[in-house]
Amino acid sequence: MRYGALEAGGTKMVMAIMNEAGEMQERKTIPTLSPAETMPQMVSFFRENKAEVLGIGSFGPLDLNPASPSFGSVTITPKLAWCNYPMTQVFRDELRIPVAIDTDVNAAALAEYTLGAARGKSSCMYVTVGTGVGGGLIINGKPVHGFMHPEIGHIPLIPDPEDPAPDGFCPYHKHCLEGLAAGPSIEKRWGVSAKELAPDHPAWKLEINYMAQLCAGAMFSFSPEMIILGGGVMQQKFLIPEIRRKTVSLLGGYFPESLISDGLESYIVEPGLDTASGITGAWLLARQAAGI
Amino acid sequence: MRYGALEAGGTKMVMAIMNEAGEMQERKTIPTLSPAETMPQMVSFFRENKAEVLGIGSFGPLDLNPASPSFGSVTITPKLAWCNYPMTQVFRDELRIPVAIDTDVNAAALAEYTLGAARGKSSCMYVTVGTGVGGGLIINGKPVHGFMHPEIGHIPLIPDPEDPAPDGFCPYHKHCLEGLAAGPSIEKRWGVSAKELAPDHPAWKLEINYMAQLCAGAMFSFSPEMIILGGGVMQQKFLIPEIRRKTVSLLGGYFPESLISDGLESYIVEPGLDTASGITGAWLLARQAAGI
Repeated sequence: MRYGALEAGGTKMVMAIMNEAGEMQERKTIPTLSPAETMPQMVSFFRENKAEVLGIGSFGPLDLNPASPSFGSVTITPKLAWCNYPMTQVFRDELRIPVAIDTDVNAAALAEYTLGAARGKSSCMYVTVGTGVGGGLIINGKPVHGFMHPEIGHIPLIPDPEDPAPDGFCPYHKHCLEGLAAGPSIEKRWGVSAKELAPDHPAWKLEINYMAQLCAGAMFSFSPEMIILGGGVMQQKFLIPEIRRKTVSLLGGYFPESLISDGLESYIVEPGLDTASGITGAWLLARQAAGI
Repeated sequence: MRYGALEAGGTKMVMAIMNEAGEMQERKTIPTLSPAETMPQMVSFFRENKAEVLGIGSFGPLDLNPASPSFGSVTITPKLAWCNYPMTQVFRDELRIPVAIDTDVNAAALAEYTLGAARGKSSCMYVTVGTGVGGGLIINGKPVHGFMHPEIGHIPLIPDPEDPAPDGFCPYHKHCLEGLAAGPSIEKRWGVSAKELAPDHPAWKLEINYMAQLCAGAMFSFSPEMIILGGGVMQQKFLIPEIRRKTVSLLGGYFPESLISDGLESYIVEPGLDTASGITGAWLLARQAAGI
């Protein structure tokens, strides 16, 4: 079977055709413009490459309530041209093939859970820190939806007392994770791109605190069996060990020593699939759509 | 079949024998003293009443890792006599019947999910606010365990600027939910029991803020399909409507209007089983232990 996989991002669309083994047969990336400009190119790619089924991991928020008439649509988003756009329905109508959709980060979490760092676990959280902060969750073997779906970038955090911009930069919320810790927030706070900041720059002490607040809060509230930190900002290799140390400190000795004896080294980890979590997750969604 | 059900609390043990329909045949409550004093009484109750299977919803933290040699034990707890006590194993050895265990709040969440307020949902969070704050989670149809199990009483919150005791009263953490909002915390802060505080006392503005922070954080992070607030403190009937209003305000307009058009009236709710969620959950665990 020829599986179509789409990683639909706010800045680019990554399209692929993959085979039964998950090997990539074709791949194309285009910028995310308006639906009128972007959708016909995507429909053409999947049609010309004879996709028999399509899995989508998409930026959101998305309507993922199967009972909703707008199931599979992007809902409200700062990318205004995509607000309420029925992406899933358009693909179904144009391609006449089964289509499955979930959030980009739930797709990535599904890939890490099935084939990556969290293989064999019953749950995991996948968080990406880049132009935004998003989190996907697999719990009891399946992606988590519920009220809407996880939007962990918007959890409120306690501003670091040394933060020169303690309110952060989110248009919705003061001092939420994304507003404090996403790449653009770092750049606005310090006037320099995150990539250009030296490892001893004070920016990183704040970033470590905020990511550790996320991890400790997750452990206390929904208790994932593994936390996977990906995305551009997390590619600074010194961050994850420091986030582990700060998380242990924030736990305040609450958990039994046996659970944290390795300093969370096997608990807060890098993605096992490197940067391929998203497109691999879209392939897994395509398999689900095909009933596999 | 005669189902044994045990709601094991830090101050009292509620034991019951229930039938196939969940009707209570026998019931006995004893104070929670040391294991040496309490366990023989409980073993006698279930033995004399011919329990064929036992379900336990217990105070914790618990070791719920099926691969652990101490599975089903209480781990570290301020009730020192119960630290590392292998409650599940002792019941199995003494009664020679199948025994299932989960946290008291996961049991209550399971009951609300199966028979109470959250029937028909795919997930729910049950929170009790009394002598402590605990939270149970059902996601994708099953109780959530993972790293350990949810301990949502210990999530950090942002202290209210008007709180005269902004650090709260938890021995592990500054400004965690339990340390700020449990019954004893209210009493320590104001010198009066929560029950005696008038509805216009400033205590309640703080309580509403803290509970709304919990609800908003849950909606952003793991997105339960319903939030159920129980326990002694929540029996003040004016609280839940105010918690809904404050939660909407903390969401900051993030979610689509269609999802919150009823002001969360059908989303943040009282228990459907009144005060019977815990023992009913223990009965459901007993049914699972019986393979039903």
